[in-house]
Amino acid sequence: MDLKKYLREVPDYPKPGINFIDITTLLKKPEALIYTVNNICEFAKYKNITKIVSLESRGFIIGGAVAYKINAGFVPIRKKGKLPAETVAEKYELEYGTDTIEMHSDALSEDDVVMIHDDLLATGGTALAALNLVKKMNVKKIYLSFIIDLAFLDTPNKKILSEYETHVLVTYN
Amino acid sequence: MDLKKYLREVPDYPKPGINFIDITTLLKKPEALIYTVNNICEFAKYKNITKIVSLESRGFIIGGAVAYKINAGFVPIRKKGKLPAETVAEKYELEYGTDTIEMHSDALSEDDVVMIHDDLLATGGTALAALNLVKKMNVKKIYLSFIIDLAFLDTPNKKILSEYETHVLVTYN
Repeated sequence: MDLKKYLREVPDYPKPGINFIDITTLLKKPEALIYTVNNICEFAKYKNITKIVSLESRGFIIGGAVAYKINAGFVPIRKKGKLPAETVAEKYELEYGTDTIEMHSDALSEDDVVMIHDDLLATGGTALAALNLVKKMNVKKIYLSFIIDLAFLDTPNKKILSEYETHVLVTYN
Repeated sequence: MDLKKYLREVPDYPKPGINFIDITTLLKKPEALIYTVNNICEFAKYKNITKIVSLESRGFIIGGAVAYKINAGFVPIRKKGKLPAETVAEKYELEYGTDTIEMHSDALSEDDVVMIHDDLLATGGTALAALNLVKKMNVKKIYLSFIIDLAFLDTPNKKILSEYETHVLVTYN
């Protein structure tokens, strides 16, 4: 299936010069939603993944479905202050300033095999922060999953992420 | 399955006097996640639901899984300014001030049978705003789905919501 046909490009969003890739046009089509989830589950097969860790908030949509399908638990990573119990936090750089993401301290254990899922890999800043957060929990193994990779954005973050086995459905070169 | 055992109550979050019901302890347990999704899918059966409309961001987790499982499309409702294309908006009252949620204008059509899903029904303010948003699209029929209902919060919003067939897994009286 050519998933790119299901994606919508929105020029100048969220600011001039950015060509935003909108996944909502994919999500609303059952055949594309099913294809996306099944394709990620195929990658997950025989890896004994015990937890899907997803990023707020678009990562939750496919992340939840994959966790359900492969019989894994689901763990949300959220923006600072959004999780009610004790958390571990990771600060990361934005274009201007910094941001912080959090995960519950009791969300993962050393027995877990984790797949981190987000919808879009752009500069890799948030994905690397998520990776660092999961690494703090000393899990057994970590895999990465993205629907889309903006591969033309070649960054030092992505060099680090490339050390982990990664699944991508749509690449923009 | 007694799902209440999988939920965590966090006292005084997000502010003193509120007993927050944390679903992350349910989500991380595969058996509880599967039970929750399957139970909602059971309710959805034979209703020919074509779209799951879910609320940012906790509603996305189970909403995405249910859409996948019942072969429906997934439509996100998000906070103002988060959706890239043309939207319809609905303003609603908070304890102090107002908030606005949005949905893409092309997300639903008159042929759609919709199930609106969110994790928690509290005062029903957000759920009613979501209902009003979906009603603007003149869809065929609307169902409601929540994991948890804080039934001890009895509000005029909930009176309006009760006119729609609703599925709830856990009730707090």
